[in-house]
Amino acid sequence: MLNKDKILEALAQVNDPELHRSLTDLKMVRDVQVHGGKVEVTIALTVPNCPLKGQIEADVRAAITALPDVKQVAVKLISMTDEERKAIFGAPKEGAATPYNHIQRVVAVMSGKGGVGKSLVTGLLATALAREGYRVGVLDADITGPSIPMLFGLHGPVEPGPVGMRPLQSRTGVKVISMNFLLESEDRPVIWRGPLIGRAITQLWGDVVWGDLDYLLVDLPPGTSDASLTTMQSLPVNGIVMVTTPQSLASMIVRKAVYMAQALNTPIVGVVENMAYFVCPDTGKQYFIFGPSHVDEVALTAAAPLLARLPIDPQVAALCDAGEIESMTLAEIPALLKAFIQAVPVTTRHPA
Amino acid sequence: MLNKDKILEALAQVNDPELHRSLTDLKMVRDVQVHGGKVEVTIALTVPNCPLKGQIEADVRAAITALPDVKQVAVKLISMTDEERKAIFGAPKEGAATPYNHIQRVVAVMSGKGGVGKSLVTGLLATALAREGYRVGVLDADITGPSIPMLFGLHGPVEPGPVGMRPLQSRTGVKVISMNFLLESEDRPVIWRGPLIGRAITQLWGDVVWGDLDYLLVDLPPGTSDASLTTMQSLPVNGIVMVTTPQSLASMIVRKAVYMAQALNTPIVGVVENMAYFVCPDTGKQYFIFGPSHVDEVALTAAAPLLARLPIDPQVAALCDAGEIESMTLAEIPALLKAFIQAVPVTTRHPA
Repeated sequence: MLNKDKILEALAQVNDPELHRSLTDLKMVRDVQVHGGKVEVTIALTVPNCPLKGQIEADVRAAITALPDVKQVAVKLISMTDEERKAIFGAPKEGAATPYNHIQRVVAVMSGKGGVGKSLVTGLLATALAREGYRVGVLDADITGPSIPMLFGLHGPVEPGPVGMRPLQSRTGVKVISMNFLLESEDRPVIWRGPLIGRAITQLWGDVVWGDLDYLLVDLPPGTSDASLTTMQSLPVNGIVMVTTPQSLASMIVRKAVYMAQALNTPIVGVVENMAYFVCPDTGKQYFIFGPSHVDEVALTAAAPLLARLPIDPQVAALCDAGEIESMTLAEIPALLKAFIQAVPVTTRHPA
Repeated sequence: MLNKDKILEALAQVNDPELHRSLTDLKMVRDVQVHGGKVEVTIALTVPNCPLKGQIEADVRAAITALPDVKQVAVKLISMTDEERKAIFGAPKEGAATPYNHIQRVVAVMSGKGGVGKSLVTGLLATALAREGYRVGVLDADITGPSIPMLFGLHGPVEPGPVGMRPLQSRTGVKVISMNFLLESEDRPVIWRGPLIGRAITQLWGDVVWGDLDYLLVDLPPGTSDASLTTMQSLPVNGIVMVTTPQSLASMIVRKAVYMAQALNTPIVGVVENMAYFVCPDTGKQYFIFGPSHVDEVALTAAAPLLARLPIDPQVAALCDAGEIESMTLAEIPALLKAFIQAVPVTTRHPA
């Protein structure tokens, strides 16, 4: 006799194609209705618009159709809520140091595209916030291509303490942690597949003694894969600053990142355009080396304000390479800082 | 009585921390010697300098120490050869279209760092080779941030044929495949974790009807994680072109990619420096916007020749954004082409 239990048994044999665990185990099976030979099931996808939803639906349909007496199968797909996802996958990740950390706002700096200046924006914002008296941390989530240590001129090793790792402190008082502080040599590659990348990020979050922070800025690597997914799913991210450059190419890829943030319900709090133009030091003329701006379109897609447009300035590369990002004096920084604080206010303010 | 079988049984319970399969299943246990209470085992790591070797060694030691009568444990770590790794993990990956494909040389374009111009170099090389009469394909292995389609002005969809997907053809005759050709919309993000990224790359390799090619160029994303690992482990890569920019920051991260290639025994055939300088169109003066060159150090670390130094030219961004990379006329292209062909010669040449 066809009944709900038979259907659940069949679905226990169907694995999520990415997570390699059964749909019942992942609590994805939400409703099963059996009326004679007609079966209706509701499946909750772990991620909205899961790219594998077609395959999941087909697998579910095939497993049920294979049962005796089944005449018709209807599969309804819904998405898990944030809370359900967190209940199953466990987030925000707790670490050894979590009880010691009180962090008011976690803001990820993202772009999808590489080389647009995510780390520069992270570093400039962190420095400007620290100068204003905010307590600031930077979590370098670019495990395989970390830029943050060089920008701040910081070098490991970070030693494990009794509770967790202590971040290094920059000249302006920013607390910084990066995978590069944990490597024997800074040149050493981290040849890891995704699961280890995700685990490293959750450890840099939960096993680090951040203490009391007003802002923790998370510098994401390019792409919309493991690092971004883990950060948005396992860290309590309050918002995202999206960084782009004038190239259409960059805009196209940044839009992917925007849609990812929207799919994961993480608000975008602002957009920064980097490498907007080059001012020739001899003539003062502006050259739009990377083409005309597309930042207004990006901001429109992101439904977020434009926080700043930063020029190409030889000072930037020179100071970044010298570990002196904290000495940078771009004219755009005060407005960037003001717009950022407005976009992500903290409720209480530590005395400077 | 303590014997070899007891040790193997114990090691069958120890999983590789990344692959989640037992060491015996992965054929990592190579030798077991038991002399009284003294045990010596040899474990072959899947990757040289596996970042998890400390954990593997500790797990092996713990599993053996837990057996009765064990008094002393010695663990020797060696690495699998390329052949052994391929025998276990199966590489190069075969796909539905593999029997129809004859590809003489597979060259990956890599940098570790994002936004340095990997796709630009891939596109310029592919176009120049096609103009010379070589049969050329481009596999865009940047699944989450593909640049290749826009550079060539190509749009999907690619439809599946009876044998496999047919790549799109560019104006100069380059066969191109990209994840973006398989998406409903080009803006759509690919929110996938690493294992799916790897699987996508092996499918773009093995399920695509490339036919006869002299060169297949693989445009890698930033980082030293899944995409680079899968490409080097599962595709028959003959060599790597490493792309860098003048920033020290880029050099540091590119060196990580160099060390990764060396760890995986993939030869680096040449180095390209992009964004070397900007020529002011009004004065003709060169500006080293991204700082002084470090390409000689990178080439030295890579033990590979410098193939070209490309300037920052507003033409580049404009033509790339317009899908006209094949119309680019940089003065450096002929020398780049010549150096590349010299570094990676093909044995037979298709008549132009």
